[in-house]
Amino acid sequence: MTAPAQPFYFPAPRAQKYCSQCSHPISMRIPPDDNRLRAVCEHCGAVHYQNPRNVVGVLPIWQNKVLLCRRAIEPRHGKWTLPAGFMELGETTAQGAMRETQEEAGAQIELGPLYTVIDVPYAEQVHFFYLAKVLSEDLFPGPESLEAAFFSLDDIPWNDLAFRTVTTTLEHYVRDAEKGLFPIHHYDIPIPFSDKAG
Amino acid sequence: MTAPAQPFYFPAPRAQKYCSQCSHPISMRIPPDDNRLRAVCEHCGAVHYQNPRNVVGVLPIWQNKVLLCRRAIEPRHGKWTLPAGFMELGETTAQGAMRETQEEAGAQIELGPLYTVIDVPYAEQVHFFYLAKVLSEDLFPGPESLEAAFFSLDDIPWNDLAFRTVTTTLEHYVRDAEKGLFPIHHYDIPIPFSDKAG
Repeated sequence: MTAPAQPFYFPAPRAQKYCSQCSHPISMRIPPDDNRLRAVCEHCGAVHYQNPRNVVGVLPIWQNKVLLCRRAIEPRHGKWTLPAGFMELGETTAQGAMRETQEEAGAQIELGPLYTVIDVPYAEQVHFFYLAKVLSEDLFPGPESLEAAFFSLDDIPWNDLAFRTVTTTLEHYVRDAEKGLFPIHHYDIPIPFSDKAG
Repeated sequence: MTAPAQPFYFPAPRAQKYCSQCSHPISMRIPPDDNRLRAVCEHCGAVHYQNPRNVVGVLPIWQNKVLLCRRAIEPRHGKWTLPAGFMELGETTAQGAMRETQEEAGAQIELGPLYTVIDVPYAEQVHFFYLAKVLSEDLFPGPESLEAAFFSLDDIPWNDLAFRTVTTTLEHYVRDAEKGLFPIHHYDIPIPFSDKAG
């Protein structure tokens, strides 16, 4: 057996070496009337701002069971997650959440209200999860999912969840389901201990 | 009189011509396992994803009056706004909202709960406004503000507000103040009629 070839394409990292407008090498400096270091082009004057990204997803319910997808991609390959992904240009958080549910689970849903809004500053992200009602038991998981399945609230695979925003959103849901009230929750995920240590 | 010189620095636009990693010209194509056009480098393989930005701000209250800033910068130069600006890497929405209040109004505040979360898809943005209590009447507006001032709810300059997310956040506040209850509001701003026509 030979190892599979490295894929050619990769997501461009935050750190940039060349100007996207004129291809001149980048300088890191504080522009006039600004107060932090930016990737600046001293040739054409372009300032390359960078900002946090939004992750948008759904907590889909079918007959008191929650729909989870098992990830076929890194990070957290093989772990269970709520359908979610990066918000795209031109869409709302709700539209992005529905798109991700279609792409990852192939589930038909009726979107409900925004349920959790979670700041994840160490990942440079904000996560949004909507409640949703699943309209049909039929699932058609896409290439980013190994499988998609329904779990009763007593059988959620807590030790095999992919992300802390998924875990905390499900924890809120289990608590709120006891009361039958599902208000919006907004909170931060502090830096993980392992990242602090490492 | 001579016209002022054009400033040298400018924000890099979304459209990019060269790869930030290797300076090779960009191709617009759909990468493998993707479903939309991206700025791709066929030389080094970098895929340059772009995502919506978050705007974070505050609705600051001092003795039943709301603190507004008059913009010294484009867009909407001379119009009144709530203190707000682009969320930066490494901060939470709350930290960003407090930073913008300091930069634009120089106001001392005690941050309250998240109040409005507004999808603005045509601007490729999501806006967040927090309630806040102003702790001192002293204001020190920064270079992005012509002035900062307190307005009673009866005197809000509705026709001179800078952005629809500011107008709608203030409208919610005026209505909620009558009831004394300030729940979180989540909604979309649809595409403006003038943009549709033009």
